[in-house]
Amino acid sequence: MNDAAKLVELRRNGILESTHRGHVVVCDREGVIAEWGHSAEVIFPRSACKMLQALPLVESGAADAASLGVNHLALSCASHQGAQIHTGLAKEWLEGIGLGESDLRCGPQPPSDFKARAGMREAFESPCQLHNNCSGKHSGFLTLNRHLGGGSEYIELDHPVQIAVKSAFEEMTGAASHGSGIDGCSAPNFTCEVGHLARAMAKMAQPEKLGSTRAAAATRLIQAMMAHPLLVAGEGRACSNLMAAANGKAAVKTGAEGVFVGILPDRGIGIALKIEDGNHRASEAVMAALLVRLGVVDPADPRVTQYLHRPDINRRGIRAAEFSVRDEVFAQGQPL
Amino acid sequence: MNDAAKLVELRRNGILESTHRGHVVVCDREGVIAEWGHSAEVIFPRSACKMLQALPLVESGAADAASLGVNHLALSCASHQGAQIHTGLAKEWLEGIGLGESDLRCGPQPPSDFKARAGMREAFESPCQLHNNCSGKHSGFLTLNRHLGGGSEYIELDHPVQIAVKSAFEEMTGAASHGSGIDGCSAPNFTCEVGHLARAMAKMAQPEKLGSTRAAAATRLIQAMMAHPLLVAGEGRACSNLMAAANGKAAVKTGAEGVFVGILPDRGIGIALKIEDGNHRASEAVMAALLVRLGVVDPADPRVTQYLHRPDINRRGIRAAEFSVRDEVFAQGQPL
Repeated sequence: MNDAAKLVELRRNGILESTHRGHVVVCDREGVIAEWGHSAEVIFPRSACKMLQALPLVESGAADAASLGVNHLALSCASHQGAQIHTGLAKEWLEGIGLGESDLRCGPQPPSDFKARAGMREAFESPCQLHNNCSGKHSGFLTLNRHLGGGSEYIELDHPVQIAVKSAFEEMTGAASHGSGIDGCSAPNFTCEVGHLARAMAKMAQPEKLGSTRAAAATRLIQAMMAHPLLVAGEGRACSNLMAAANGKAAVKTGAEGVFVGILPDRGIGIALKIEDGNHRASEAVMAALLVRLGVVDPADPRVTQYLHRPDINRRGIRAAEFSVRDEVFAQGQPL
Repeated sequence: MNDAAKLVELRRNGILESTHRGHVVVCDREGVIAEWGHSAEVIFPRSACKMLQALPLVESGAADAASLGVNHLALSCASHQGAQIHTGLAKEWLEGIGLGESDLRCGPQPPSDFKARAGMREAFESPCQLHNNCSGKHSGFLTLNRHLGGGSEYIELDHPVQIAVKSAFEEMTGAASHGSGIDGCSAPNFTCEVGHLARAMAKMAQPEKLGSTRAAAATRLIQAMMAHPLLVAGEGRACSNLMAAANGKAAVKTGAEGVFVGILPDRGIGIALKIEDGNHRASEAVMAALLVRLGVVDPADPRVTQYLHRPDINRRGIRAAEFSVRDEVFAQGQPL
């Protein structure tokens, strides 16, 4: 079956109202364990590949040369929401390598963190590039760039930073990328098959067969993400909630337009999924369902249940509709 | 073909990133002119059927008994954004029939209108039921209820108001509704086939064959919507922009979860569409494309172009991606 599979439904009073389709691949180093939709579908991984984009930062020695901690590595893989814990760390990081906000090339973005938004409005402050959800990734790019000695425009396709990133990305997916686009943060984003992205995540989960430098870098990045769920996204966000619930058994990362990846070190498993229509309510539901089936989160944990059975509460507090992952995917939570 | 058709694409650097599917029917009183997807797909029309829900208000004589003007009729069909022009009119309307905000049963909703939000934050005001996007529809329900002498809970399925609404809805779609759910505003919403919703809109467009009372009511409601595009939605909204661009040649109305309908009186044409995944960026694109093909808006009009070729501008102002209606639907704008 080459078409996108029906994955998530919105039902109102039990009647089907909306459906989300997509492509899902679960695999280990040996191959595919489960698949819905089409594993060869070409996608933009968007921010879901940030841990791959961060590999050169660590394996080049740039991270250690800049004395980056576990928290910086977590932030380098983050799509954060511009809370003080994120912007403060990015600011300190850049100052530590003798750079500043103006060296970033991600562009300013209003924070989505509630307290940051309210506080900035009160103080008539404008968002800066530190608030951009990708400022950690870009701080990583700048740190790598300092090590490589490239020019200031580190987001250009032929810049040494992006050449290193593309190389790591293709080595991990195991395939050449045949296309790229400009991401929301202006960095290049390289296309890949969703199955190849899952394979890259399986390698991150079970890095022993990679070279020792890459294996060490992969392990450090994944451990950093799992150690700091809130740095990777923020309060109330799916990545943070699901990683907190998995408690060291899974690193997960969302990407724009309905992408989500998962890395399960104990099981050596990688997950990649893309919702055809780009919707996050669906990608979050599918990821939560897969983590339940893979035994790394408890479906009764409220941090998980909210995505498995996401209610649509109306203006008078009535639960008028509900999103659920279809049985073809969730299978009543049967082990996968 | 019974499956949803691919309708709208997001392309990044020309490469397909996301796709929206759905069901679209264009018809006149004689039958279907064009169809994509499946005309027999059962949908919740949500707010896209407000002009049908308002028919009993007018044809019962309740609207005239309450001296409602063209502006009140437009607001009765609105999903407004809680600007002063909307909440002020709803408040005055309710006072005029001896009722008030507490008689509404739609629930409070924060306004989406920029000025209203900013002003309320500054004044530490909480949203009330007048801000609910459906407060005009509910004011219409209360006005009808005063005429019918029903109890206060006018949103219950067996209340005289909702019995009258269901009856008008089924007469216009030409089919019994086999299901209902609770809408975001707590009123019942009745299911129908997307093709039957299009047929109802064709009847609204060409009401001469309806009974004279209904025909007059349909004409008054559609003329009211077209006379007051901003009351039906608000600044920057697709319904308002497209109706303003059509300049009396089309009434259009969005509904939650990717529904959109159109009524073209001069051509006697009705349109109904549902995006399978519920996304508005797609429903707006398809409606704009159909209005172009039906000759009632100019594709070069910025109020239209923004939906036909919706850019995805990134944080540094780069046009990184673009939404477009697929050629199967837009056909380079060829007349339909």
